[in-house]
Amino acid sequence: MTDFSQSRAAFDLPEGVIYLDGNSLGPLPRSAAERVSRMMTQEWGRLLIRGWNEAGWYVQPRRVGDRIAPLIGAEPGSVVMGDTLSIKVFQALSAAAQMRPERRVILSDSGNFPSDLYVAQELVAALERGVDGSADRGLELRIVAPEEVEAAIDDSIAVTLLTEVDYRTGRLHDMAALTANAHAAGALTIWDLAHSAGALPVHLAEAGADFAVGCTYKYLNGGPGAPAFIYVAPRHAETARPALAGWMGHAAPFAFDPHWAPASGIERMRVGTPPVLALTALEAALDIWEGVSMDALRQESIRLSEAFIAAVGARLPGLPLASPRDPERRGSQVSFRHPDAYAIVQALIAQGVIGDFRAPDIMRFGFTPLYLTLAETERAADLLAEVVLTEAWNQPEYRIRAQVT
Amino acid sequence: MTDFSQSRAAFDLPEGVIYLDGNSLGPLPRSAAERVSRMMTQEWGRLLIRGWNEAGWYVQPRRVGDRIAPLIGAEPGSVVMGDTLSIKVFQALSAAAQMRPERRVILSDSGNFPSDLYVAQELVAALERGVDGSADRGLELRIVAPEEVEAAIDDSIAVTLLTEVDYRTGRLHDMAALTANAHAAGALTIWDLAHSAGALPVHLAEAGADFAVGCTYKYLNGGPGAPAFIYVAPRHAETARPALAGWMGHAAPFAFDPHWAPASGIERMRVGTPPVLALTALEAALDIWEGVSMDALRQESIRLSEAFIAAVGARLPGLPLASPRDPERRGSQVSFRHPDAYAIVQALIAQGVIGDFRAPDIMRFGFTPLYLTLAETERAADLLAEVVLTEAWNQPEYRIRAQVT
Repeated sequence: MTDFSQSRAAFDLPEGVIYLDGNSLGPLPRSAAERVSRMMTQEWGRLLIRGWNEAGWYVQPRRVGDRIAPLIGAEPGSVVMGDTLSIKVFQALSAAAQMRPERRVILSDSGNFPSDLYVAQELVAALERGVDGSADRGLELRIVAPEEVEAAIDDSIAVTLLTEVDYRTGRLHDMAALTANAHAAGALTIWDLAHSAGALPVHLAEAGADFAVGCTYKYLNGGPGAPAFIYVAPRHAETARPALAGWMGHAAPFAFDPHWAPASGIERMRVGTPPVLALTALEAALDIWEGVSMDALRQESIRLSEAFIAAVGARLPGLPLASPRDPERRGSQVSFRHPDAYAIVQALIAQGVIGDFRAPDIMRFGFTPLYLTLAETERAADLLAEVVLTEAWNQPEYRIRAQVT
Repeated sequence: MTDFSQSRAAFDLPEGVIYLDGNSLGPLPRSAAERVSRMMTQEWGRLLIRGWNEAGWYVQPRRVGDRIAPLIGAEPGSVVMGDTLSIKVFQALSAAAQMRPERRVILSDSGNFPSDLYVAQELVAALERGVDGSADRGLELRIVAPEEVEAAIDDSIAVTLLTEVDYRTGRLHDMAALTANAHAAGALTIWDLAHSAGALPVHLAEAGADFAVGCTYKYLNGGPGAPAFIYVAPRHAETARPALAGWMGHAAPFAFDPHWAPASGIERMRVGTPPVLALTALEAALDIWEGVSMDALRQESIRLSEAFIAAVGARLPGLPLASPRDPERRGSQVSFRHPDAYAIVQALIAQGVIGDFRAPDIMRFGFTPLYLTLAETERAADLLAEVVLTEAWNQPEYRIRAQVT
């Protein structure tokens, strides 16, 4: 068994907290604050504008992308950082749709993030409407149940837009099989790796994925609002053309050419000035991954989640598991359903166990072997059982919903 | 005369540097690194996911927008932060174009940032092409010379997309007059304030501007890659609909509704998870503006730029001024032309005077009264004259162009 005590020591975790919400916001790497502070005082403060060249800020989005690539099975030079996940979904989708101009359907599923669906809906609406509001070209965002995706892939589909791990249930799509199905039908694939990157082994190149996107504030621990990444398969990198084009994605940004010409390769997916502070915090977080085997991480993740399910099941046999029982069909989280899920999660937080709630009735617990131990997992299961059995959640203060939950 | 020594003391400026590039990247506010460090260790580190509520991260884009609003003459509640300038241009343009569906022309000028033009070109191309590549609805991005904008505004124009201050020459558009012209012709206006916000008084509400966008890493000193802002006039705030829609702009982000419904007001322009580290650095930078009068700042800016022009003109009478001679028609920068502009700027940097070069032949110098003195301005003019007169720039090392310039 791999020993994760070294990676655990690399995080600054509050005393008395069992953190099962690293799938929402990863904890602070110990080196991150000092790294950002040094970047600010030594680079920004001393170099000023020269930092773009001399401190490597300009190439940082690609340099960081090259560090994320091995974590998601991507070819070197196929990943670049920037913006947010929604922006990257928009770019991937607009580029992919243009590559299948004769097709009319974007296929997604009801287990996808609503935010991905919003981006797709409003992009479809804009393209459909054009600028004059009159067009009707039958362009469609088709949303089916997750288990119906395979059967729904046919030769009407331009592109599939799927999130590999369902943010509520943790259900894991079979990326390789669905990508093969899509390609057999002549469609392209976009994979959202928000709950995959840093959570389990991902093999983009091996699966033949066309596009992928993801965020870095969850399992990659980049901090609140950390930038997103986008992957374009090298075979598409010279043809993909995003509808959202910025100067950093220009072939010659500092020629100030009035016409946009896409940069070679993945760089064309850059848009505006990169977020140097956030990328610097992320670089500190990525140091922790050096030497971590994704297969070993997965093995430990399954050990933790299986232990949690077993322990909760033993104490609360009637509590419905919302996640697949088979660990091979699950990401790195476990969800249970309860009509009072919100209040239970609040009561657990009051006891130092941080999980989260997803509407309408999901209690969600993320397992992050980099810093979470088996003992904590078992303690969390005990406390969950106690809160449910004693109805400790049934207090007014746990029922008031905060603005963000 | 207003004394800016207090604001100057709030910046951490390197010894021996005269910084005339604050219009490209503002310097480090002394309190910023510690503020970000505290946010990371005390908020992210201790509160973890609860920081979204308990540390106010969720409302930060609006809170910071409300601090920028008075600097640009915007109504309270009409500005929100996020993403980059290019993304905000895209949102404003897609929203404005939809509000004039019967019109076909987006009007911009050749003094606009190429990056704004790229966003417009690729948006037009996408809407024009739709998803099937076949549409031809005559949608057009029309680019005229800056001095021809007024005459080019007619009833074919859906929206004008103009940058108030030309990034090369510093030429200042008459926002109030052009906005009135556009409205008289039934068009909408988008103003890019990249070189205006924090540089000179801006009166968005008074001018009747429809949309405005800007960045915060120039005169507002937010740091490399600091987030952008977007303004929507309150009269449009409930109807404007960006093609780029994210979950933070949803009416109920945490209901996880599969359909996008725009939030009320300016919040709908939010897209993804906000960049908390960058916004925190920006908050520190905005503290310096408390109590600063934009009119006094403008007066001092003109005093500095006039002194610079006079001093350079006295020593180098043949050097062509690329900026308007009338300070009322200029932003807060002064540009000169020289065939060897690049090498001259490099030689000046070697002497501690940091300005910048813009292709093909512009030397650009920004004037920032918050931290720049008259003595420095005069010293910079002396050194510029010396470099040009002695041909100190004519060295191989000054002619090699760096990747980013």
